[in-house]
Amino acid sequence: MEGKEKIGWIGTGVMGVPMAGHLMDAGYELAVYNHSKSKSGSLLSRGAKWASSPAEAAANSDIVFSIVGYPKDVEEITLGENGCLKTLKKSGIFCDMTTSSPELARRIAARAADLGCCSLDAPVTGGDVGARDASLSIFVGGDAAAYEKILPCLECMGKKILHCGGPGTGQAAKLANQIAVAGVMFSVCESLLFAQEEGLDVAKWRDLVCSGAAGSIAMTTLGLRMMKLDYSPGFFVDHFVKDLGLCLEECRKMRLVLPGAELAEELYRGIQARGGGSSGTQILISALAGLSGKKWRSHS
Amino acid sequence: MEGKEKIGWIGTGVMGVPMAGHLMDAGYELAVYNHSKSKSGSLLSRGAKWASSPAEAAANSDIVFSIVGYPKDVEEITLGENGCLKTLKKSGIFCDMTTSSPELARRIAARAADLGCCSLDAPVTGGDVGARDASLSIFVGGDAAAYEKILPCLECMGKKILHCGGPGTGQAAKLANQIAVAGVMFSVCESLLFAQEEGLDVAKWRDLVCSGAAGSIAMTTLGLRMMKLDYSPGFFVDHFVKDLGLCLEECRKMRLVLPGAELAEELYRGIQARGGGSSGTQILISALAGLSGKKWRSHS
Repeated sequence: MEGKEKIGWIGTGVMGVPMAGHLMDAGYELAVYNHSKSKSGSLLSRGAKWASSPAEAAANSDIVFSIVGYPKDVEEITLGENGCLKTLKKSGIFCDMTTSSPELARRIAARAADLGCCSLDAPVTGGDVGARDASLSIFVGGDAAAYEKILPCLECMGKKILHCGGPGTGQAAKLANQIAVAGVMFSVCESLLFAQEEGLDVAKWRDLVCSGAAGSIAMTTLGLRMMKLDYSPGFFVDHFVKDLGLCLEECRKMRLVLPGAELAEELYRGIQARGGGSSGTQILISALAGLSGKKWRSHS
Repeated sequence: MEGKEKIGWIGTGVMGVPMAGHLMDAGYELAVYNHSKSKSGSLLSRGAKWASSPAEAAANSDIVFSIVGYPKDVEEITLGENGCLKTLKKSGIFCDMTTSSPELARRIAARAADLGCCSLDAPVTGGDVGARDASLSIFVGGDAAAYEKILPCLECMGKKILHCGGPGTGQAAKLANQIAVAGVMFSVCESLLFAQEEGLDVAKWRDLVCSGAAGSIAMTTLGLRMMKLDYSPGFFVDHFVKDLGLCLEECRKMRLVLPGAELAEELYRGIQARGGGSSGTQILISALAGLSGKKWRSHS
């Protein structure tokens, strides 16, 4: 292949724009599709081509990346009427970076194989900050040779990249990560709330415990936001509800009971039902206080 | 006061022996009591005096420290028939380092004040390793002047020392710490178990997530022990059940509902009921697997 691969990019939200931007920085040519064109403006003004459908984004591309919202969006942009698998060349590689269902990832990979191309699942962690700093962690599932081919692209976007195994294993690894996040959210929120209700100096208490057996990255980072009543996202409740729902779907298929993850999904679904879906996940502390008719206060 | 204060030390278990040893290293004279004398052997052979009761340990002491098992033990060695408050001199200071009930700490402090002496609560975190390395964190509740007086002693045993407020606040701070620990245990155990059931390379997965939003000190330390099926204590299930019980007792008094802590207490009580009380708390992962009739396996 002469020069760099041509890239199709589907999804230009808060994650997609900086991630695609890193590929442009590295000299890749991009054809960009998003369901609302306006969000692609910054990439188009830097020279990315506009594609009017996922199929068009894939038509002249060697590799197509996507990062969209929900599994139904992933299904539509791949297997749908104008989906990218319709036009992706034989030997082309599709790589979905959305957090989505392992089962859907396997279904897309099977369809891609039928068509003579290849599909990888490669969801990320690290949030909008990681996307901007190119410091994401990336969990990749699917064919090893295809993984090796797109690795230079992934290295433009992330620092830690793990090939987890066959199709769907990237999604499974990401969902395991979200289960761990659910647990640390309980850890941080319940302990801070208990400390407040006991009348402790919550700020001093938090400083002390961050580095001990009770410590977590979330206690250090989100804990600080909670103390300022800063519920801005970081990571949306809506997206966490989606992710935890996918976790429980997997659990049901595997006949695995994880009571902590189930409790977390229930509480976050309640926050969403009460209109908090666009808050950051740290709003859990306010919801937990509300269970007892109490109020989480500022401690900064 | 000429020279160093004389110290009474009550409780020479796995924590008490190294902690008392640090005071001896610093040149303090100790009178030691333990309900079974044999466990005090190493301190007695280094020159500590044997006291045949808590009262005797306190009789000629300026400061009395205790670290025993359960709140009922704390009650007995302080307020009981041969309790140390019976003989502690006016202006003497009693300091209980057991993880115990805030309400009991306040009751002992009130009784001490009636008798013209002073009682502090000062539970610790950091486990047997922290006790040996003198790297404990210590949460202190009670009179500020008394705290200042015993601070040089506490600094022989711990690195991070926080005066939290009045009587009982040291215990409250420690219990908040245990609630945070309960959450991270869910985080680590449920995510590792999910990763295993998904057929992932659990060791590689864990390496990747330790430093991200899913990361915790427990994932780094206890997570590694779990992967080797090493359930040796660290921290006994029996003691964690005690601590979580105290947490829920406080929650009931404060009319505070913490569903994560309640779920943790329930699961750990189940482990205890099935004979696992003397295992380390990381055995939770095996119990969680058992909920679904599955088996946690070695991943090292």
